[in-house]
Amino acid sequence: MTATAVRARDAAAELAPLPRTARDAALLAVAEALPARAAEIVAANADDIARARAAGTPDSLVDRLTLTTERIAAIAADVRDVVALPDPVGEVVRGSTLPNGLELRQVRVPLGVVGIIYEARPNVTVDAAALCLKSGNAVLLRGSSSAYASNTALVAVLRDAVAGAGLPADAVQLVPGGSRESVKELMRARGLVDVLIPRGGASLIRTVVEESTVPVIETGVGNCHVYVDEHADLDMAVDILVNSKAQRPSVCNSAETVLVHAGIADAFLPRALAALTGAGVTVHGDPAWQRAGTTAGAAAVVPATDEDWGTEYLSYDIAAAVVPSLEAAVGHIRRWTSGHTEAIVTRDASAARRFTTLVDSTAVMVNASTRFTDGGQFGFGAEIGISTQKLHARGPMGLPELTSTKYVVTGDGHVRD
Amino acid sequence: MTATAVRARDAAAELAPLPRTARDAALLAVAEALPARAAEIVAANADDIARARAAGTPDSLVDRLTLTTERIAAIAADVRDVVALPDPVGEVVRGSTLPNGLELRQVRVPLGVVGIIYEARPNVTVDAAALCLKSGNAVLLRGSSSAYASNTALVAVLRDAVAGAGLPADAVQLVPGGSRESVKELMRARGLVDVLIPRGGASLIRTVVEESTVPVIETGVGNCHVYVDEHADLDMAVDILVNSKAQRPSVCNSAETVLVHAGIADAFLPRALAALTGAGVTVHGDPAWQRAGTTAGAAAVVPATDEDWGTEYLSYDIAAAVVPSLEAAVGHIRRWTSGHTEAIVTRDASAARRFTTLVDSTAVMVNASTRFTDGGQFGFGAEIGISTQKLHARGPMGLPELTSTKYVVTGDGHVRD
Repeated sequence: MTATAVRARDAAAELAPLPRTARDAALLAVAEALPARAAEIVAANADDIARARAAGTPDSLVDRLTLTTERIAAIAADVRDVVALPDPVGEVVRGSTLPNGLELRQVRVPLGVVGIIYEARPNVTVDAAALCLKSGNAVLLRGSSSAYASNTALVAVLRDAVAGAGLPADAVQLVPGGSRESVKELMRARGLVDVLIPRGGASLIRTVVEESTVPVIETGVGNCHVYVDEHADLDMAVDILVNSKAQRPSVCNSAETVLVHAGIADAFLPRALAALTGAGVTVHGDPAWQRAGTTAGAAAVVPATDEDWGTEYLSYDIAAAVVPSLEAAVGHIRRWTSGHTEAIVTRDASAARRFTTLVDSTAVMVNASTRFTDGGQFGFGAEIGISTQKLHARGPMGLPELTSTKYVVTGDGHVRD
Repeated sequence: MTATAVRARDAAAELAPLPRTARDAALLAVAEALPARAAEIVAANADDIARARAAGTPDSLVDRLTLTTERIAAIAADVRDVVALPDPVGEVVRGSTLPNGLELRQVRVPLGVVGIIYEARPNVTVDAAALCLKSGNAVLLRGSSSAYASNTALVAVLRDAVAGAGLPADAVQLVPGGSRESVKELMRARGLVDVLIPRGGASLIRTVVEESTVPVIETGVGNCHVYVDEHADLDMAVDILVNSKAQRPSVCNSAETVLVHAGIADAFLPRALAALTGAGVTVHGDPAWQRAGTTAGAAAVVPATDEDWGTEYLSYDIAAAVVPSLEAAVGHIRRWTSGHTEAIVTRDASAARRFTTLVDSTAVMVNASTRFTDGGQFGFGAEIGISTQKLHARGPMGLPELTSTKYVVTGDGHVRD
């Protein structure tokens, strides 16, 4: 592992001074090689699928693991999209001429070596490598053991293409072994790895944050809230609530809790309950929601406990409470949120302003679904994850978030008095 | 300690939504209270000084610890300078209207609770508190035990002034006890403290980086290099070298190693040796420098070992080597630098460009002294430290570096397809 990281560091030093054309050429070579070598990738993927089926893996997970010729073509198309993005490297972030005539420029530079720890989907292997190469970084990929054959085949294609374009093959490396040891070694490679980005479940992310001496960017745990204000348009509130919860419940920006102002609870709860139930959602409610569930024709509401407020269901379940005020909603959110995305539905400009000011999360939506917190939706072209921490990057991370800066100061013999 | 951090978190939640006027008013109250209560501060400081003298502390350190009425007035003036700086909070960093009509704004927000661990100088107590308040953060101050009486008196004045201006007093807290335990507890206060900034010696910084689960910004260890290129103006090179080393050797941006291109070594080494010796500097040199030290009338050169290349002397000592090329100088720097500041002296534009591109440090100086890497010199108005890490902040950290961002997304019932 240390040898792997040293090779990555050396490759990063070679990559950093290269112009955009060199990095783009390597990415275009990757985009051509992937479909050209689809057969060997699909064959390796078949091994992973066979192992997964033998282990009784659910169909939905097997589907996420599966690569086909069509999916490989789509992955290659995504690489071409990354090529087209603006180059973050060399961007002058700040610049001025100081009073003494020194010329100061703060310039974006690659981070160096980026380590990514992720779970089953093998398309992440290519996406992450493409974003790192585009931003001038070497990447250490540590995918899940269940995709090891697929990732090995993909990385072989990536390395050949990168080397064929004249860049160091070690700019892209798969961390050897699917073992927990290799994660531990990555987390201890301080001075060799510049940042670790864990993508996956809450327990993986917690482990990396607690044990890593390498700087970490936390991603993606989402316990998102929708607050329906006293002055909400109720049709809009129902649409946003159902979309936030049920449009794709398995992802981090789906809603897990709905909070409703007491002043509109009588009007809103029956309609929300009907709409959520119609979308296949089970409501885990406080006493007010439980009462709404006992009226004639309404679906039953499961009593909510404190555990529900803190749970990222990632399923067709939602926690639900009635709150006496906007400030009480903010208090509930501050106590239980993972800091990802919260939405308010209101026609009251003052309420919207108070909510966006008081809520301290990565993204705050006004009259829009929580599902919009996403690099693609935000127009960033691609994302390597969604940071839920406050340092370095917060929210969807695109290419600029994979860079650092350097000050270049030019004088003419300047010394300090 | 946990109770202290919880109070800080609650104070941060109160501070975050306040407008600039409220924060500035509190800072102006601080600037008035400090000279008004100078007597009690000086009295407390006398206790620290007496203890320091009894412990045989060197005069230079006692001087750094000492507060006088004049110094307190100067500290208060610095607070007024901070008031005048632009407000980072609320700045829109990025904004656009997305294709679907959603209005996206990325807005600067305070980090929340900032923990600062620092050594003897009590003026840091006020500087750090002022920068944190200006940027809307609550601060936990953990100064050295040798300044505990002074810091206690200063923080009492700060808290009274802040509370008198209507802000929560707990926005400024001194971490109780001068013990190592309190540092450990700060490092484990994940979820309560948003960032820890250690300021001080290399061992303090290493301990915090390795043991903290709270995100850390590394500061200030400086093993800075001056490279004198084959095409340097030799007069300029001598001036920059002596200024970088000897203008103030005890600080992180002073030079610790000089590297000289072999092509100008014969002409440069005798002159550099004379100038450095004249400034009171001892040269720890490689064989070429040692030979230069044996010519008639030259000062003797101490043989350098690998330890010299890696040492931050902070004294009138410098390591010195001759290198065969610019690339060899870059290789030496990459191996030994702490990543703070490196300078090249050259008249060759191509050499300057290669050096600034290939060196991966926080600041790269062209024909200027390393001593310019400084928030004040860079025009940032004030600095809370100099980050030598790549994540979040790199280089002198001013007010923007004490903030995070939040996305505020405004729609009109937008849901995802």
